[in-house]
Amino acid sequence: MPLIQYLSRIAFDFGAISTLGDQIAKLGLNRPLLITDKGVANAGILQVALEAAKPSVPTVYDGTTENPTEQSLLDCLEIWGDNGCDGIIALGGGSPIDLAKAVALLSSQGGNLADYNVRTGGSGRIEKVSPQIAIPTTAGTGAEVGRACVMSLLDGSKCVAVNLNMVAEIVICDPELTLSLSPKLTAATGIDALSHGIESYCSPLENPPAAAIGLEAARRAAKWLPIAVEDGGNRNARYQMMMAALMGGMCLQKALGGAHAMATPLGELHLHHGTLIGILLPHILKFNDGYADAAFADLRSAMNVPENKSLHEWMTDFVQGIGLPTQLSELGVEQNVLPKIAERASIDHLSATNPRPAGAQDYLGMLKDAM
Amino acid sequence: MPLIQYLSRIAFDFGAISTLGDQIAKLGLNRPLLITDKGVANAGILQVALEAAKPSVPTVYDGTTENPTEQSLLDCLEIWGDNGCDGIIALGGGSPIDLAKAVALLSSQGGNLADYNVRTGGSGRIEKVSPQIAIPTTAGTGAEVGRACVMSLLDGSKCVAVNLNMVAEIVICDPELTLSLSPKLTAATGIDALSHGIESYCSPLENPPAAAIGLEAARRAAKWLPIAVEDGGNRNARYQMMMAALMGGMCLQKALGGAHAMATPLGELHLHHGTLIGILLPHILKFNDGYADAAFADLRSAMNVPENKSLHEWMTDFVQGIGLPTQLSELGVEQNVLPKIAERASIDHLSATNPRPAGAQDYLGMLKDAM
Repeated sequence: MPLIQYLSRIAFDFGAISTLGDQIAKLGLNRPLLITDKGVANAGILQVALEAAKPSVPTVYDGTTENPTEQSLLDCLEIWGDNGCDGIIALGGGSPIDLAKAVALLSSQGGNLADYNVRTGGSGRIEKVSPQIAIPTTAGTGAEVGRACVMSLLDGSKCVAVNLNMVAEIVICDPELTLSLSPKLTAATGIDALSHGIESYCSPLENPPAAAIGLEAARRAAKWLPIAVEDGGNRNARYQMMMAALMGGMCLQKALGGAHAMATPLGELHLHHGTLIGILLPHILKFNDGYADAAFADLRSAMNVPENKSLHEWMTDFVQGIGLPTQLSELGVEQNVLPKIAERASIDHLSATNPRPAGAQDYLGMLKDAM
Repeated sequence: MPLIQYLSRIAFDFGAISTLGDQIAKLGLNRPLLITDKGVANAGILQVALEAAKPSVPTVYDGTTENPTEQSLLDCLEIWGDNGCDGIIALGGGSPIDLAKAVALLSSQGGNLADYNVRTGGSGRIEKVSPQIAIPTTAGTGAEVGRACVMSLLDGSKCVAVNLNMVAEIVICDPELTLSLSPKLTAATGIDALSHGIESYCSPLENPPAAAIGLEAARRAAKWLPIAVEDGGNRNARYQMMMAALMGGMCLQKALGGAHAMATPLGELHLHHGTLIGILLPHILKFNDGYADAAFADLRSAMNVPENKSLHEWMTDFVQGIGLPTQLSELGVEQNVLPKIAERASIDHLSATNPRPAGAQDYLGMLKDAM
């Protein structure tokens, strides 16, 4: 089985889930807590994981919500304490994986999540957290190799904790687990992987290894996402999309840009991240046109964009082609929230690495165009 | 300054050496042992490093030989004990960096180097070693991000120890340190970086992130090595070659192939590794022609190989163009050693990842062609 080892040790292949029991033993876990959500449980994937975990019998928490909350975190910590847990298995999309990181953090270092907020400098204090095994069941966020968790605090505000000490030791990427994803979820998660490649490649940060990985993520996602949406049973497309998502996660140290700067505050309206990204991506590409010429040229070549089409036109067609909405109004976003969103986007840390400087007025223009 | 962080934390820029004092403090080292060689000391680079290390005052060992020996290791361990050292700074090419890894290993875990030989399974026992800062002064081996050390034991045999726990925590890549490298050493080390990109990209191991990095290493080395050789003061060329070498080191988890399988036993004749690689590379490319078509096509495109030239012909021209020898006989290799070398190449673990299976007879043919 191919082994890929940068920050984490990544087992990547069809059937890789079958190594879970061995991986649990390798990490020396006696009482793992498996964190997942109802969707994963209902799809039968939790059962597959529990079978694979044997002889280990993880304690299961399946209450993760789409935007993971501090309440889930507190529930998990109680289970952790009651059961004497000693490590975590995250099974699902970005939400269970993020929640797992928060549990790994507080179970090892105590305190409240807000103590580790990156905005207040708390993330710098994070030391090595409890051991984690991350198992993605979608191909999109790349959270399985991520070093951050985004959580909603009890007071409703968002808290982001970021530190390399939160990266999962072991990652199991098994494309088999994504075969049953609906076309809609395939598209809405896969577009996030594509966007990670595109936005990181356009960022002005110098990081050639991450750039090389990001460009390849974009190439694979552009080629295989439409096929995975069209024919969910296409095993090669599922494999390639899971690889694109992983590579999209690995290149994030080269940062992101304006599409993600807008998606973060919009996400607090409880809208799906990938769906937002699909809507926003063409608009940031139009805005950036002329400010990242070399990156645009490489991306056009990698993603096979026809010569007679601008990158942003191609992007709009792509998003439409995989059945995703292209307007914020389709998600119920209303005009009156846009100025506030634009303001927040302009001060988001990801805006700083957009290739063209963008202020609140710029974002407002893009958001209006996206309505 | 760009930060690149996969396994190690890499500070990469002109003048990055000036951060050495901060990095020593960050690692919490009170009494670092700086391991280098006479060449680096005579070039004035040791003095630059010692200035940059202030207020820390490292103990210096400058006795590293071209193929580092167990005797140097024992000398370093004695200095370590006498001075109460608590960490290592490796400054130089592959040899001081390899020696530093061995010192980091034995100073933390004791025993003899042979106890950790990968051939006898000893490497698996290696736990986290003493902290290391690696500072390359050539652009070639990529050893600064490596997990292996190759040493000559007291009995003359080679010992290779390999474990991710030996990777340096901090790497400082400062292209400034390579500005004074002679054209000959620039060529002979740079060709190694190019070969890492080429051979790893052709290996059949599936590792798309490493493949993306390897292809980019080959692209940069093919473009910039001739310029760095021609005009050593070209700062951009020096920067790009140091980046190519780093990326060439990072892609090695996708393994190598037949050129390195032959270079390993030939290296025991005390021949320069990169020079050997330059001679052998065209011959393995000729041998592999037709067995790695997709990889060859990508490499041709990345390295800008003219359509009317085979990859191996281009490679021969390239090696000649940068002033390196193209025949083993020029290094004093004699016909009668070739069968033994071929035999050893065929059982080298790197031969297993050559895209075309190669036996002793195949290697003998290539070696004869290379005479």
